Amino acid sequence: MRQPVAVYPGSFDPPTNGHLDIIVRATHLFPKVIVAVTDNSNKNPTFTLQERKKMIAEAVRRYPTVTVDTFSGLLVDYMTRKKASVIIRGLRAISDFEYEFEMALMNRRLNKRIEAVFLMPDEAYTYLSSSLVKEVFSLGGSVSGLVPESVEKSLKRSG
Amino acid sequence: MRQPVAVYPGSFDPPTNGHLDIIVRATHLFPKVIVAVTDNSNKNPTFTLQERKKMIAEAVRRYPTVTVDTFSGLLVDYMTRKKASVIIRGLRAISDFEYEFEMALMNRRLNKRIEAVFLMPDEAYTYLSSSLVKEVFSLGGSVSGLVPESVEKSLKRSG
Amino acid sequence: MRQPVAVYPGSFDPPTNGHLDIIVRATHLFPKVIVAVTDNSNKNPTFTLQERKKMIAEAVRRYPTVTVDTFSGLLVDYMTRKKASVIIRGLRAISDFEYEFEMALMNRRLNKRIEAVFLMPDEAYTYLSSSLVKEVFSLGGSVSGLVPESVEKSLKRSG
Amino acid sequence: MRQPVAVYPGSFDPPTNGHLDIIVRATHLFPKVIVAVTDNSNKNPTFTLQERKKMIAEAVRRYPTVTVDTFSGLLVDYMTRKKASVIIRGLRAISDFEYEFEMALMNRRLNKRIEAVFLMPDEAYTYLSSSLVKEVFSLGGSVSGLVPESVEKSLKRSG
Amino acid sequence: MRQPVAVYPGSFDPPTNGHLDIIVRATHLFPKVIVAVTDNSNKNPTFTLQERKKMIAEAVRRYPTVTVDTFSGLLVDYMTRKKASVIIRGLRAISDFEYEFEMALMNRRLNKRIEAVFLMPDEAYTYLSSSLVKEVFSLGGSVSGLVPESVEKSLKRSG
Amino acid sequence: MRQPVAVYPGSFDPPTNGHLDIIVRATHLFPKVIVAVTDNSNKNPTFTLQERKKMIAEAVRRYPTVTVDTFSGLLVDYMTRKKASVIIRGLRAISDFEYEFEMALMNRRLNKRIEAVFLMPDEAYTYLSSSLVKEVFSLGGSVSGLVPESVEKSLKRSG
Repeated sequence: MRQPVAVYPGSFDPPTNGHLDIIVRATHLFPKVIVAVTDNSNKNPTFTLQERKKMIAEAVRRYPTVTVDTFSGLLVDYMTRKKASVIIRGLRAISDFEYEFEMALMNRRLNKRIEAVFLMPDEAYTYLSSSLVKEVFSLGGSVSGLVPESVEKSLKRSG
Repeated sequence: MRQPVAVYPGSFDPPTNGHLDIIVRATHLFPKVIVAVTDNSNKNPTFTLQERKKMIAEAVRRYPTVTVDTFSGLLVDYMTRKKASVIIRGLRAISDFEYEFEMALMNRRLNKRIEAVFLMPDEAYTYLSSSLVKEVFSLGGSVSGLVPESVEKSLKRSG
Repeated sequence: MRQPVAVYPGSFDPPTNGHLDIIVRATHLFPKVIVAVTDNSNKNPTFTLQERKKMIAEAVRRYPTVTVDTFSGLLVDYMTRKKASVIIRGLRAISDFEYEFEMALMNRRLNKRIEAVFLMPDEAYTYLSSSLVKEVFSLGGSVSGLVPESVEKSLKRSG
Repeated sequence: MRQPVAVYPGSFDPPTNGHLDIIVRATHLFPKVIVAVTDNSNKNPTFTLQERKKMIAEAVRRYPTVTVDTFSGLLVDYMTRKKASVIIRGLRAISDFEYEFEMALMNRRLNKRIEAVFLMPDEAYTYLSSSLVKEVFSLGGSVSGLVPESVEKSLKRSG
Repeated sequence: MRQPVAVYPGSFDPPTNGHLDIIVRATHLFPKVIVAVTDNSNKNPTFTLQERKKMIAEAVRRYPTVTVDTFSGLLVDYMTRKKASVIIRGLRAISDFEYEFEMALMNRRLNKRIEAVFLMPDEAYTYLSSSLVKEVFSLGGSVSGLVPESVEKSLKRSG
Repeated sequence: MRQPVAVYPGSFDPPTNGHLDIIVRATHLFPKVIVAVTDNSNKNPTFTLQERKKMIAEAVRRYPTVTVDTFSGLLVDYMTRKKASVIIRGLRAISDFEYEFEMALMNRRLNKRIEAVFLMPDEAYTYLSSSLVKEVFSLGGSVSGLVPESVEKSLKRSG
């Protein structure tokens, strides 16, 4: 068996400690992990594609098997180009579950060779999301401990 | 990174095509997969531990990286003995989700180095379970296509 | 189109006002409704098959298109004998949802011509179940308004 | 009992094979089925009301008991005008479940004579939705097998 | 123990009888209840902050222990200013559950002394929401019995 | 307003740190909290009623407003005798949610003056249950940190 390359796709707008937790777990499972930031320009992200890529890159610097990239178009097409066959996704809650299954079944339909693998973040991050981080920050709350330090700084610069 | 050994634990009372589907997916992800049948003697299984082990062994014969084993006691202790660090579990429905998370968090607490990985079976098996198979069979219905052939024969012998 | 005959299967151990609510709704949809009490002798019911049949029969007396019957074996086989093609089921809560879908998909697999139709009981009965009725009654609570009068009497006789 | 007329309301933006699956099942249950496209102009649909109506009409051409219509205002008022008493809805997932129940209870409150009937699509369509179809198409993916042919053509013309 | 002051925060755009039901229940539990209308100007509410405050104030006039207020910024900061330590929230459905838990865990993180308390509205309001009220009203349906009278009048004036 | 007495009912077979977490939260909300161990002799508990009462009593010794009691029969009847009007329940997961709502609506029906209040345990206890504790212990795993010390000792004595 050739060891599979894993891709962890997402908006990461911004990345949280929950995302970082999943990335680290993925490095224990697969020899190469690509964090793939999606160019969902239509979703009107708070941070630009390059900002998001840079925030993750800083946060994962000490994990040599992790690379950070951006992509547009279909995830399965991107993965084919990267010779990757595993999609990493974090599952925190029931609402994740249904959305993730919908996406996973669609991706499987588009390319049968690609497998989705769901990991469970630390329970401390069960209810942590990028949008909640932004809401708390915008209302003047501290997001320390919820996001990597580099993200906290970026939020303060952008705020 | 040493490539992790994966364990797929369960009762498999009896194994279904949904279980087999997960096993095959696991072989695409990890170089070695151990199907570990649990000796849950207190759960009053329909088939003996050895019968269940044998049914799976027949069903996975053409997958050389899969071995079938039995275990009793804590899963994490068994995995330590086997130098395995990945638990494979199938996620079909919301009710699975909560039970699986409870077990995964407990296992993580018992041994932080062990990671649970959730896979999604083919949608044709979304609502397939061992107990439903037994119920249909006991009422005289055909379980062809729901279980491996060897299991169908065993059910007929036992019926 | 021949008008379909509908079957409302269940344990009805005992029937509740929630069951009755579903039966009445079904009579507005289909010209003939058969309430089919299942002989789940392995489930160790509180009331005998005949008691359950009689309790429903008394409760639906004024609905001329409803008949009450018992069956054993596979529901789809019973329906074929009865030339019925519609299964009626009440959906109250999420936990119902998953169980009902599992059963409906299995029945569809066993007989493609049979369709499951889900109805929503009055919200007053959303959280009403036979087991809860029995628990409340056994602890000395009033079940008036939760079950048909004939059932209340039976409970008192049996208590 | 007068046989009830059934209405299958929705946005159908665009119609999918999951919608079509529900329509066909409804024709087995009720002698007359009206697919009622809602003029939800505030939801900023991708296709115009007339385009959506036309796409469905082409897809259901061979089902003589199905008619396609458009409506605005309250569904229950439309149904009263059409002398229809049954609302058909497909239930795919938990998230559907809660939304559908909310709508069904509200409609019941607005008109007690109207009954909502929930059908289960083929499991192949469990996780199929109009929005997912549009997302996949917009990213360059094939939606063949997910939507009726007429819809695929419309998507290509509009794309 | 000093008796805790309870805050019931929300958008109340507009308040419904479900909200009122929760307020009344809260008055049976805590000696002082503050209904705190959030100035979520970014959510583009239908009614202004002052209109929403006034509608609630009229609806709760006969409950002397209830006061109505507005706030902006973090809820926990507002509560500290008010010396309040209990957040009241209504739980109607699964989708509420996950959102509410996410918010409650975040608030607990921001201030450990603040406790979220979940109450269950009357089952008649299980599926009632402000957005559904607005949708029904905008389509010409009656919302009588779903909202306090003062709200019904406001809707008619605004309509 | 007379300050309400709160009852926290349950099997506590055995009590866990999750139960203890809820008890402590309740003491911040209500001046008097009664932990009421249910005599569910039909559920075949692992520990006797008196053992369970004693284990909780030891664990809550330093909370002067907490008393521990046992009861049989209907909870609402017990509460009337105790002049208590608030039921405390912990909500950890979706499956809790539906069961708890069913019970709460039934209790409300049996006695309208009694209010159920749901609290959220620390996220570290989200997936902790008495049955999981017993399973882990019986398989030889450590339950340290999952249950109060007195319970750990009792488990060891009983094991």
